Amino acid sequence: MENAIQRLKDIITTANLWEQELVLKRDTYIKDANTIDTHLYFLEEGSVRVYFTEDAKEHIVYFGYKGSLVSAIDSFLTDTTSKLCIKTIKKTTVKVISKKQFLAFIQKEKEIVTLWQHVLSQLLVMQIDREKTLLLDAPTSRYQHVLDTHPMLFQKIPHRYIASYLRMTPETLSRIQKS
Amino acid sequence: MENAIQRLKDIITTANLWEQELVLKRDTYIKDANTIDTHLYFLEEGSVRVYFTEDAKEHIVYFGYKGSLVSAIDSFLTDTTSKLCIKTIKKTTVKVISKKQFLAFIQKEKEIVTLWQHVLSQLLVMQIDREKTLLLDAPTSRYQHVLDTHPMLFQKIPHRYIASYLRMTPETLSRIQKS
Repeated sequence: MENAIQRLKDIITTANLWEQELVLKRDTYIKDANTIDTHLYFLEEGSVRVYFTEDAKEHIVYFGYKGSLVSAIDSFLTDTTSKLCIKTIKKTTVKVISKKQFLAFIQKEKEIVTLWQHVLSQLLVMQIDREKTLLLDAPTSRYQHVLDTHPMLFQKIPHRYIASYLRMTPETLSRIQKS
Repeated sequence: MENAIQRLKDIITTANLWEQELVLKRDTYIKDANTIDTHLYFLEEGSVRVYFTEDAKEHIVYFGYKGSLVSAIDSFLTDTTSKLCIKTIKKTTVKVISKKQFLAFIQKEKEIVTLWQHVLSQLLVMQIDREKTLLLDAPTSRYQHVLDTHPMLFQKIPHRYIASYLRMTPETLSRIQKS
């Protein structure tokens, strides 16, 4: 299950199904709020944040960096508009496949739909873990949990964004990291 | 996608793959903390809550009632122990299938693995929605969102559990409902 995303990327590459490769400047929207996401994005380089805005406050729900598969997945799976935005954090290169192409492709063989099932399982486990993190009341517990499970995040993503993801101020994160 | 769980139940029934049907008293553990969940449970009657305990506080993450598919899904998908517990809220009847049987079954045909892919997609969309709800700061917003998306919950589940799920006291929930 671990490398399901990488394997999925490889077979899409072998099948020559990437529709485009985009090189995007920092702070560029890949998907804006209240639109339908009809694509999957595979990150070759760079980093992005997935978030929604409520009462002028940004809530980060997900980060993508090299090797990540990103989409406003709620919108992608249901074909409905979604509040989720995807925005680059720095210069970012993504490979893009449309849902239409992707669905036709995974239906071809049992092995491919099984691979997609593994990717969905992986995303679901991550989301359940995310819920557990959010329910931890103590900021130190939330920090420790994400450090244990996603140590790479702290090397890949600016800490002010990680602070938002952990529901704390950058000052609190900095204080916890020093203690 | 809507009725994927019901369709999955029906084909397991047709294939005669349910291993047991359990009738459980209220407040009975279906799955305890720090164990591996090797089964899927389909709820025929009754209701359950899925939760974990942290610093002696119970955090509810999911409810199941008639027609729900329940498992400590993080544990089920990864074969690792999980903090999640499943406990009956009232007298509950569940049909049970083991992971081993289930995986062998879904691998048989592309249509069945596709159906499971739909169920996983549905669970993932629910989890993303759950994250959005938890990130809403105002208790009234969390209440309104869950009332809009899961109105049945308020008929099926005692309100003190819903209050916990919404991260508020029963008194706050009661006040919001009256206003």
